Amino acid sequence: MKKVVITVGRQFGSGGRMIARRVAEELGIAFYDKELLTRAAKESGISEELFHSNDEKPTSSLLYSLAMSNFSGEMPLNHRIFLAQFDVIKKIAAEESCVIVGRCADYALRDLPHCGHVFIHADLEFRKKRGIEEYGLPPKSAQGIILRTDKQRANYYNFYTNRKWGSADTYDLSLDSGTIGVDGCVKLIKDFAYIKSEAAQ
Amino acid sequence: MKKVVITVGRQFGSGGRMIARRVAEELGIAFYDKELLTRAAKESGISEELFHSNDEKPTSSLLYSLAMSNFSGEMPLNHRIFLAQFDVIKKIAAEESCVIVGRCADYALRDLPHCGHVFIHADLEFRKKRGIEEYGLPPKSAQGIILRTDKQRANYYNFYTNRKWGSADTYDLSLDSGTIGVDGCVKLIKDFAYIKSEAAQ
Repeated sequence: MKKVVITVGRQFGSGGRMIARRVAEELGIAFYDKELLTRAAKESGISEELFHSNDEKPTSSLLYSLAMSNFSGEMPLNHRIFLAQFDVIKKIAAEESCVIVGRCADYALRDLPHCGHVFIHADLEFRKKRGIEEYGLPPKSAQGIILRTDKQRANYYNFYTNRKWGSADTYDLSLDSGTIGVDGCVKLIKDFAYIKSEAAQ
Repeated sequence: MKKVVITVGRQFGSGGRMIARRVAEELGIAFYDKELLTRAAKESGISEELFHSNDEKPTSSLLYSLAMSNFSGEMPLNHRIFLAQFDVIKKIAAEESCVIVGRCADYALRDLPHCGHVFIHADLEFRKKRGIEEYGLPPKSAQGIILRTDKQRANYYNFYTNRKWGSADTYDLSLDSGTIGVDGCVKLIKDFAYIKSEAAQ
């Protein structure tokens, strides 16, 4: 297959990360999730711990950030972390075929013809069941944790891009992992990767 | 292939109808777009002209509709038309494999395991170009017509269902016809139809 990069946004509990990993394995290309943070930390000189604690968390308000940058004379940490990730995503996409999960990678790589952008979602009941069984969430608080995490991801995405997280027209391809199934999603995303790869050359 | 019904929602100018027709042809199954209106008119006894003039148009406000029904003693015409279409969609989906375009068919057929729900979108520039070249829209007013038609479809859909038109999680599969291409969309939707068909049996 010619060079192709697939970015995967995902609702919490949809199995998006697992699906993305299987797509990468079956296509024989690299997979980036938390690995991104390690590399961005190395290249930026910012501590890796700070990348993990700020990972896909919504920033403080823009006004607060602006105020902070005026007082300190430099860009606030959360923005520096975001930009370091942004740079690493662009470098990786220029270097090799891969699958990248989350972290506004679709926005960083928009308009690059060899990059295709996927979103994976599923209904709340399906995600609650997975959250309890796969991640060991306490049944009583599973729903709250899922909705809170999605809200964080949406706020983070909508703050740093001019797009809307979870809206169909933000992505090339959106799939319901609950109704299509994990195997079905992997097959459709692999087909999509081949289509993007051929069209881009 | 075992019995399967694919519903296709679409942004105006995205080529969704053409893609849906090709999927039906290539799978060798029936295709319903305006054909639905003819059948719903026949079965309901309401004039076919009224179906066409009310087609996917937003209803008057619920309050107005309720007031009208109280005065006349029967359900307002736009609701009767919607329900007649709803009945026909359910009958068709029980009878045969097919592709159905628009008209809240995804909502009418929700939770039926042999039915899969697709949304097709594309960016505004792509849709303007197609609108001018394929539908002969005047270049100066093309954008306005596209945005107005989408707003009508969204209002119609959101009024009659408890879902959001164009939100990824409303559908099983959403595709960007501008970036994936018509042939790519046809291939992915056919793959999806086979997945749904196998899973439902």
